[in-house]
Amino acid sequence: MKSRAAVAFGPGQPLEVVEIDVEPPRKGEVLVRISHTGVCHTDAFTLSGEDPEGLFPVVLGHEGAGIVVEVGEGVTSVKPGDHVIPLYTAECGQCLFCQSGKTNLCVAVRATQGKGVMPDGTSRFSYQGKPLYHYMGCSTFSEYTVVAEVSLAKISPDANPEQVCLLGCGVTTGLGAVKNTAKVQPGDSVAVFGLGGIGLAVIQGAKLAGAGRIIGIDTNPSKFELAKTFGATDLVNPKDHEKPIQQVIVEMTGWGVDHSFECIGNVQVMRAALECAHRGWGQSVIIGVAGSGQEISTRPFQLVTGRRWLGTAFGGVKGRSQLPGMVDDAMAGRIQLAPFVTHTMPLAGINEAFDLMHEGKSIRSVVHHVAA
Amino acid sequence: MKSRAAVAFGPGQPLEVVEIDVEPPRKGEVLVRISHTGVCHTDAFTLSGEDPEGLFPVVLGHEGAGIVVEVGEGVTSVKPGDHVIPLYTAECGQCLFCQSGKTNLCVAVRATQGKGVMPDGTSRFSYQGKPLYHYMGCSTFSEYTVVAEVSLAKISPDANPEQVCLLGCGVTTGLGAVKNTAKVQPGDSVAVFGLGGIGLAVIQGAKLAGAGRIIGIDTNPSKFELAKTFGATDLVNPKDHEKPIQQVIVEMTGWGVDHSFECIGNVQVMRAALECAHRGWGQSVIIGVAGSGQEISTRPFQLVTGRRWLGTAFGGVKGRSQLPGMVDDAMAGRIQLAPFVTHTMPLAGINEAFDLMHEGKSIRSVVHHVAA
Repeated sequence: MKSRAAVAFGPGQPLEVVEIDVEPPRKGEVLVRISHTGVCHTDAFTLSGEDPEGLFPVVLGHEGAGIVVEVGEGVTSVKPGDHVIPLYTAECGQCLFCQSGKTNLCVAVRATQGKGVMPDGTSRFSYQGKPLYHYMGCSTFSEYTVVAEVSLAKISPDANPEQVCLLGCGVTTGLGAVKNTAKVQPGDSVAVFGLGGIGLAVIQGAKLAGAGRIIGIDTNPSKFELAKTFGATDLVNPKDHEKPIQQVIVEMTGWGVDHSFECIGNVQVMRAALECAHRGWGQSVIIGVAGSGQEISTRPFQLVTGRRWLGTAFGGVKGRSQLPGMVDDAMAGRIQLAPFVTHTMPLAGINEAFDLMHEGKSIRSVVHHVAA
Repeated sequence: MKSRAAVAFGPGQPLEVVEIDVEPPRKGEVLVRISHTGVCHTDAFTLSGEDPEGLFPVVLGHEGAGIVVEVGEGVTSVKPGDHVIPLYTAECGQCLFCQSGKTNLCVAVRATQGKGVMPDGTSRFSYQGKPLYHYMGCSTFSEYTVVAEVSLAKISPDANPEQVCLLGCGVTTGLGAVKNTAKVQPGDSVAVFGLGGIGLAVIQGAKLAGAGRIIGIDTNPSKFELAKTFGATDLVNPKDHEKPIQQVIVEMTGWGVDHSFECIGNVQVMRAALECAHRGWGQSVIIGVAGSGQEISTRPFQLVTGRRWLGTAFGGVKGRSQLPGMVDDAMAGRIQLAPFVTHTMPLAGINEAFDLMHEGKSIRSVVHHVAA
């Protein structure tokens, strides 16, 4: 079948909205009509060419919501008409990792997903007869996409897709990092480095967890107002200080914060986030994705004196088990999504979404595949 | 009073056994007659001059056992005749850290201890009228030493001091790292880098915790036999492999080990230990003390995919609360100490203890202050 899609033909080039060919779903696969997709920094990272695993030409996009159109052989957990969120972190329920009870990092489709193909090793997308790569198992920048059954969370049909598509990546990552990875407790102090979509979701999660002091840190003070709305109690611009930011935070708090979160992908900030964690028990969670080949460093004394360095992917959330409940929480108002959606646009305007992100003007732009 | 002591007059020089002057204990202080002291890598590290906080001339030693001789004003928790182990990690019970329930890193005497003096800012030791520095709040290389009350664990008078002195540092650090920091569970897999006293104690702790596979790693295969005795199931010499040791361990185990421990103080080994931890949940505990200015590094992807980087000091053990019970465990045979004591000697032979350590011939040498 034909589908309108924004295709990345090469690194560093604007996306081109073209009509591509989409093959029917094979065994264990599902054809989904995406109605809405967020545009995330990870899409921009791959598009930039800095992602060493980036492949071109490719259909990007991994933060979407849609409806099942057709299922392949053997698919039993969803049927046409079901509302779904594609998952870049699958949940097969069978692998060593799913069965461990300790992690959400399912390996069922990991190897092929990283190579831009479906689990059988081939692509369902082509343009002018030449194959296009899939992206993170989702490719939500195509109106019609094919996704593995294990990579689909079935959600309430009454959810607002313009908002809950954000649970496909950024907001879930931030909320989950607080709840599942750091396990923030009532009264704990928190520092959040980077107040984009993920950082704001961390602030929302910290507030929901009953954190006491919530310190938001960004070099762009235009983010501060929204951070306050979500629950930040203190806002710090590192540019206002001559001292290293970790020292500023330690001095503000006495001994550092109970939990810090790096939501940028900058290895120097990752170090600062660790080093502003409380002596004795403070922990720092890396959420941001660093550039190729970059490394984090610190003195081991930081860890020997009780700090803990962690990371998280998709906030430790198991997509098929846990995402439907988070959608219900959003519908009931327990999770706020509307403030994240600062811009909307049709697919034809998707390059503007990248521009707004790079200029620091948007939190999230949501692309409507079908005009409202 | 006079006391025989092994004094480090300068970095890189052999210790000199001389008669020093020891002042009586002041308020909150206790005079202890040390009967036995272990010689630990940390003493050697400071003696070498590589320790940036090392001060000279100094009375080293921090792994001892002894008997209270005299108490200063206000001391209530010990009295003359009590058997004690000096603690380089105090436990005041009052500070933010003691009261947190999250860490053993008491700060009561931390600032002055680091400066080689008692909490009032002065030394109790002198030689030929010139002050000598204290070391780690213990200075067990002097037969008579003065220690803060909060830095003394009162133990059973029936314990064997030649053995339980090792609970003052190395053995407790290793056992505690397994139990308190990593919290190893039955069936877990463990990798131990460095099979000195601490590494062997980690192996013993892992065995006690019911770990499944226990992999000991050392470039000196003469350590392997004792490691097996303590419970190692696999022994690896990195020199036998061309691949990086982390890759060797990952290949041996499929996805890495549940817990790894760095017991050397080598920042490259710290990286290897992290990178051989299991994807999704593996954690690595830094125990070794690295040289001045050295840093640990890795790709943040290692943490984002679920590994956790931790550290420990004195194995997370609260000395006054928990060490007496560990001494009881040793007396009951639940903790094995005898195999660690590979050499004993009088104070006059203390330099030989350092030589044996540097040559990799000893696990622990125990110095007897008073001939048996």
